[in-house]
Amino acid sequence: MNLHEKDVREIIKRALAEDLGPGGDITTFATVDPDKEGVAAVIAKEDTVLAGLEVFLETFLYLERSVDFSTGFADGDVIKKGEVIAELMGPLHILLTGERVALNLLQRMCGIAALTSQFVQAVSGTKAQILDTRKTTPGLRVLEKYAVTVGGGKNHRFGLFDGLLIKDNHIKAAGGIKEAVESARSKIPHTLMVEVECESISDVREALANGADILMLDNMDIKAMKAAVKEIAGRALIEASGNMTLERVGEVAKTGVDFISVGSLTHSAKAADLSMKIK
Amino acid sequence: MNLHEKDVREIIKRALAEDLGPGGDITTFATVDPDKEGVAAVIAKEDTVLAGLEVFLETFLYLERSVDFSTGFADGDVIKKGEVIAELMGPLHILLTGERVALNLLQRMCGIAALTSQFVQAVSGTKAQILDTRKTTPGLRVLEKYAVTVGGGKNHRFGLFDGLLIKDNHIKAAGGIKEAVESARSKIPHTLMVEVECESISDVREALANGADILMLDNMDIKAMKAAVKEIAGRALIEASGNMTLERVGEVAKTGVDFISVGSLTHSAKAADLSMKIK
Amino acid sequence: MNLHEKDVREIIKRALAEDLGPGGDITTFATVDPDKEGVAAVIAKEDTVLAGLEVFLETFLYLERSVDFSTGFADGDVIKKGEVIAELMGPLHILLTGERVALNLLQRMCGIAALTSQFVQAVSGTKAQILDTRKTTPGLRVLEKYAVTVGGGKNHRFGLFDGLLIKDNHIKAAGGIKEAVESARSKIPHTLMVEVECESISDVREALANGADILMLDNMDIKAMKAAVKEIAGRALIEASGNMTLERVGEVAKTGVDFISVGSLTHSAKAADLSMKIK
Amino acid sequence: MNLHEKDVREIIKRALAEDLGPGGDITTFATVDPDKEGVAAVIAKEDTVLAGLEVFLETFLYLERSVDFSTGFADGDVIKKGEVIAELMGPLHILLTGERVALNLLQRMCGIAALTSQFVQAVSGTKAQILDTRKTTPGLRVLEKYAVTVGGGKNHRFGLFDGLLIKDNHIKAAGGIKEAVESARSKIPHTLMVEVECESISDVREALANGADILMLDNMDIKAMKAAVKEIAGRALIEASGNMTLERVGEVAKTGVDFISVGSLTHSAKAADLSMKIK
Amino acid sequence: MNLHEKDVREIIKRALAEDLGPGGDITTFATVDPDKEGVAAVIAKEDTVLAGLEVFLETFLYLERSVDFSTGFADGDVIKKGEVIAELMGPLHILLTGERVALNLLQRMCGIAALTSQFVQAVSGTKAQILDTRKTTPGLRVLEKYAVTVGGGKNHRFGLFDGLLIKDNHIKAAGGIKEAVESARSKIPHTLMVEVECESISDVREALANGADILMLDNMDIKAMKAAVKEIAGRALIEASGNMTLERVGEVAKTGVDFISVGSLTHSAKAADLSMKIK
Amino acid sequence: MNLHEKDVREIIKRALAEDLGPGGDITTFATVDPDKEGVAAVIAKEDTVLAGLEVFLETFLYLERSVDFSTGFADGDVIKKGEVIAELMGPLHILLTGERVALNLLQRMCGIAALTSQFVQAVSGTKAQILDTRKTTPGLRVLEKYAVTVGGGKNHRFGLFDGLLIKDNHIKAAGGIKEAVESARSKIPHTLMVEVECESISDVREALANGADILMLDNMDIKAMKAAVKEIAGRALIEASGNMTLERVGEVAKTGVDFISVGSLTHSAKAADLSMKIK
Repeated sequence: MNLHEKDVREIIKRALAEDLGPGGDITTFATVDPDKEGVAAVIAKEDTVLAGLEVFLETFLYLERSVDFSTGFADGDVIKKGEVIAELMGPLHILLTGERVALNLLQRMCGIAALTSQFVQAVSGTKAQILDTRKTTPGLRVLEKYAVTVGGGKNHRFGLFDGLLIKDNHIKAAGGIKEAVESARSKIPHTLMVEVECESISDVREALANGADILMLDNMDIKAMKAAVKEIAGRALIEASGNMTLERVGEVAKTGVDFISVGSLTHSAKAADLSMKIK
Repeated sequence: MNLHEKDVREIIKRALAEDLGPGGDITTFATVDPDKEGVAAVIAKEDTVLAGLEVFLETFLYLERSVDFSTGFADGDVIKKGEVIAELMGPLHILLTGERVALNLLQRMCGIAALTSQFVQAVSGTKAQILDTRKTTPGLRVLEKYAVTVGGGKNHRFGLFDGLLIKDNHIKAAGGIKEAVESARSKIPHTLMVEVECESISDVREALANGADILMLDNMDIKAMKAAVKEIAGRALIEASGNMTLERVGEVAKTGVDFISVGSLTHSAKAADLSMKIK
Repeated sequence: MNLHEKDVREIIKRALAEDLGPGGDITTFATVDPDKEGVAAVIAKEDTVLAGLEVFLETFLYLERSVDFSTGFADGDVIKKGEVIAELMGPLHILLTGERVALNLLQRMCGIAALTSQFVQAVSGTKAQILDTRKTTPGLRVLEKYAVTVGGGKNHRFGLFDGLLIKDNHIKAAGGIKEAVESARSKIPHTLMVEVECESISDVREALANGADILMLDNMDIKAMKAAVKEIAGRALIEASGNMTLERVGEVAKTGVDFISVGSLTHSAKAADLSMKIK
Repeated sequence: MNLHEKDVREIIKRALAEDLGPGGDITTFATVDPDKEGVAAVIAKEDTVLAGLEVFLETFLYLERSVDFSTGFADGDVIKKGEVIAELMGPLHILLTGERVALNLLQRMCGIAALTSQFVQAVSGTKAQILDTRKTTPGLRVLEKYAVTVGGGKNHRFGLFDGLLIKDNHIKAAGGIKEAVESARSKIPHTLMVEVECESISDVREALANGADILMLDNMDIKAMKAAVKEIAGRALIEASGNMTLERVGEVAKTGVDFISVGSLTHSAKAADLSMKIK
Repeated sequence: MNLHEKDVREIIKRALAEDLGPGGDITTFATVDPDKEGVAAVIAKEDTVLAGLEVFLETFLYLERSVDFSTGFADGDVIKKGEVIAELMGPLHILLTGERVALNLLQRMCGIAALTSQFVQAVSGTKAQILDTRKTTPGLRVLEKYAVTVGGGKNHRFGLFDGLLIKDNHIKAAGGIKEAVESARSKIPHTLMVEVECESISDVREALANGADILMLDNMDIKAMKAAVKEIAGRALIEASGNMTLERVGEVAKTGVDFISVGSLTHSAKAADLSMKIK
Repeated sequence: MNLHEKDVREIIKRALAEDLGPGGDITTFATVDPDKEGVAAVIAKEDTVLAGLEVFLETFLYLERSVDFSTGFADGDVIKKGEVIAELMGPLHILLTGERVALNLLQRMCGIAALTSQFVQAVSGTKAQILDTRKTTPGLRVLEKYAVTVGGGKNHRFGLFDGLLIKDNHIKAAGGIKEAVESARSKIPHTLMVEVECESISDVREALANGADILMLDNMDIKAMKAAVKEIAGRALIEASGNMTLERVGEVAKTGVDFISVGSLTHSAKAADLSMKIK
């Protein structure tokens, strides 16, 4: 997906308001000459995948349009420990005031991209694609889903509004898979697929029989997944879901599923270790 | 700190807008009878510390004022794996629509409270208090700082506006510790302490000589910290900072520092494993 | 689709701000005793289909929570000329101040529902379903799409974000139907169908060959549509589009297409003739 | 009236948010190279009056500041079927993403200007001026009132806050025309005229006797209007109102009234038939 | 004018955000038991005119819906030094947190009402009415204009949008009084009077000759005003303006002008001396 | 403190919206050619201290980016009656539309700076510094606190969130000075001083005994202040507060207090007399 400048700026605006409050950065105000210019380097303190460079820079530009920068990297690049990701030039007080917010955002995005790229690596050689989920940080979904694509993953639906996913509770509420699928087809736009969560082979059969476009195999073990893939036999797309780890994902991919959705991409990615130094 | 309802609601509003988009929860719309009532149980799938119950409930109340709940717990309670944290009663479609956003928030807050309480445990028997930092999730600082206090931690300054912390870059920009401290005293409200980051014993001496109220020992090893505490001899408050881990924090506490600030409380806390089941 | 109260209230808030400005309803202020209660009847001055009753009422409730109402109708009901749709009870000055905004919204929504129901009538007996488009009033799409469903129509995608529709310009930019479809499949969530606009039988063949899920027959005459339906032979869903009128839509439906999208539902619906009288 | 850029941008922002949602234009994202430049022509598919060119262009500029354009026309110009109104140059994906919203706004505004100019034509040779009403699209009043002036019409009050119009309900609430007018004079700013709705000659007499500045002849037939104009004899301004059509408006104008207010200018104007083509 | 709850709440929300910041009232948080209830009395420390009681109360209600109050007074009442204006009952911490913002608003409004009532007193026995101006506190105009009416004054136009006032600069720009008045009549809604600023008798004559509805005598001395009133002889309304003081306003009123506009009502009113005491 | 452009723009946006409403500056629209350029001079009609020049200019820039200006002054400069503070060049209609709002802001800020500088003058030769309070205009605090520093004053805490000030009500609620101070120390960030309001020598003693960092001597007479200063003997910072006037403040300063807080700086400063003339 694309990052829209308007979404990015809204997030930055909110994050800066939170950090600056009504009174501003009092330490910098009290100790730094507002006319002094400076240069700051962003340095990787561990290997990572760059994601969110634009977001990082926009944080400073939001504070002051005259900030400039240079970089030899772009989102998606692998960054080695010790490398200088970018240099910022501008009023020293702006560089200091924006530092923490800009890093908080960049570190999180790089962390997600790096973790995603590990999962993608782990399934290479299979047809399976790594998907994200809706288990994102409230308010930052657009950044986190973008970081997933930078790391080589593919986005699942953005939210509740652009994809239909019939889960066990929906099935129960509707009175069965058949009823749920039929009701969905009649009410949602024809541009959306119908995906049904299946917890057993009998769920799989019923969903197929009622024309589901996608089956989500939920929390199945490898053996059950293999059986399901065989049963489906190409009649629907298959998404595997539930407690995916780097250790296990390769084996899941080999069962022949089309997609593997991984909550931990956004839920448990560790922030990349980056720092900013005034030169 | 307190959670203000207005801040909580703003975060919830944003998170729901992000998940619902302009079109809403199409799956629930398409499969669940809007007149059907339901009951949902929130269940702990691992041991944790409860934090954010109000935030969890407000998510549903934001969608529909008629949702009700019952619980035997309050924020700060230790929750055991398998326990039912709370039950929600209300329109089934509301329970389904709000589930993911409400859990995303609650899991994060419980994770932070649980991690904080481990750090607090690790320094028990010393006078050291565990502090958070500004390394929080952009947009969620108010929730995360609250979760830290629920876990037994103490809040550092909220942002750049309510605490003065003179770091190396400020010192360099001001021309020295003496110049930085003097400039700060003359410009900031008299209600604020002056805290100075020290990287060596000589920094410590200079900061003390110029009347700093608090010294932050930055990235010092245990031996250097001990020397610094001895040098300071009660003339200033002492905060230890830099790469604090559960393994190391107890030893740091024993050096006699007053505060230990831990970025990972908010930066790297794992989300608690919680789920919601419709009964 | 559902109307979310939050979306409705946002629209009402904006519409009232526009009409009231910073100074308020000066005529009512200057002539009506603020303690006087009143009753107002909303009367149909022509036959119509009721849509937007909640929106109408919320306009007054936004101004004053104590307004009450009674009605014998619900959205979707056919209303006959002269019938009283609802009665409002509350402070007289509130009824007068909210009248125009509430009617502007209700008249527009009823007009759309009534026109939609005429189109639905015109294709009865065929399998074709009537769809809306994105040719809605900027800022009111959620209300207008809801009114279409009230009138018996089905919603197309809500916006650019929840449905993929590859038009001639996209095909040209991508370098051909094949390239466009392949690129789309690889980049968009797997929960979305791929729809391709076809202007000729050869477009139809190419789109089918590349696995398009839905074909939009754009501005074809009846003969061309019949040929296309025959060619497709159930291998994809079919949407007919372009200058649909009440006169022509029945014949289009008989060609065997699945969906007919009609821009004029929202674009050219006449506002229903309704009035409000203080009793 | 003037279009203020801030108001225009607010409307555009809202309309784009509605169409783009949190996820953006997925079709264009998935099929169009973001570095590709393009040229688009806006073409009239029927005769119309140009209104809203700035609004059209601002839609694209809101998405991307680098979009440029050329045009030989200005608001108010008569456009002939087949003429190219303007050409846009810029990133192809921006042109495609903004197309529908920009056209939705422009088509509506041109439609209003064209209809207004027909009404103005129909009363030419008389002193009567064509006025708009408050029967505008909620949220778009500023654009629609501007379009009326572009078409040669004159604006009535903008909203409830900048003009006093005492209607039958106000009169009833105040206890009579005399009471309503007196109360109004004492409470509203002296910079505002007092206008009174009259349904009969006796209303006219009473309003005149109490010093009304403007009389609105509401839903009178031609004969009654003539009598009213004669009775008034220049002692107040006269506005005719109620179900004005192109067929009837000329005759109304000839009765000698000063103003004729026409709800259908904004209420029932058909959108102009315009299209945008990528070259 | 009326106070609309939505406007009041917007102002209160902003004022509380300014005072509470992201971190809240730390003193009260740190020292007051959140479960403790309290009673607070608002006491006049000087004579004043009550204005803004609703605004005062809404400040606390915004923080917490359970706050209650009792009062024997209403806006417009004269309050004597030492009287208890109202008592508030509710959570003690809410009473303490809202105190300053609530008082800041109430003191300002009472101050304006009291000063206005002195001016009204000073012109009693003449037909002159006291008007406010646009010299109000940015962001608080709606409260200040309301306070003027509470004090017995009359509102001038609310802003630039609801009244036409042609000043010297407009006259110069238009090319003369005649040109300015004619242009205005042709472009503004017919519901608005045309007011012209006159600095001399010759201005008065030219404005009258061109049909101005209101003449503003700007900065004239008493003698010039008398001459102007005589010249006008009832052919237009007359507003006197410019450096009005309590000392001088009575004499101005006796010249026979209809209105006297007084910038200092809102510009220089001293805040009333009020305090809040916890009982 | 610094003025952040984002805060300034928010205030200007709100102030202009209030003055322009949805309809705009109708007088200027109706009388001034939109293509006409003009020059405006801002002239001091009394001696003052310049504060807010940037705010003044931003008001016009908000309306139109092409406005330019020249000035020989900067904030903090003493301005003499009759001097031209700045000249503005730009579209004449923009200069006229922005005039009142820009002046309302500038006059208020200059008034505060001038009054502050008088207080600072009155305590010269002592160590006492003049502080502002939270008795500011709701919504304009950031501008008013900035103006205080321009006039030579020092800012007290910005709001309730960045400084701890334990007043009589907090002491009562906590159960005594000892309890309040201890509770505060344990709950607030260690970066904040503890200030305690003292009404008597015994309060002073108790606060000192419990380690308060700052004592506020509230409403004490000169004799009591002298005794308190002697008692404190350098063990805490001292702030004098309560009904400070220009007449009395010098004597207060001579008692040896560190700070004197003056509510009237922002509460009762008269707006500076400035005007704008089109050349």
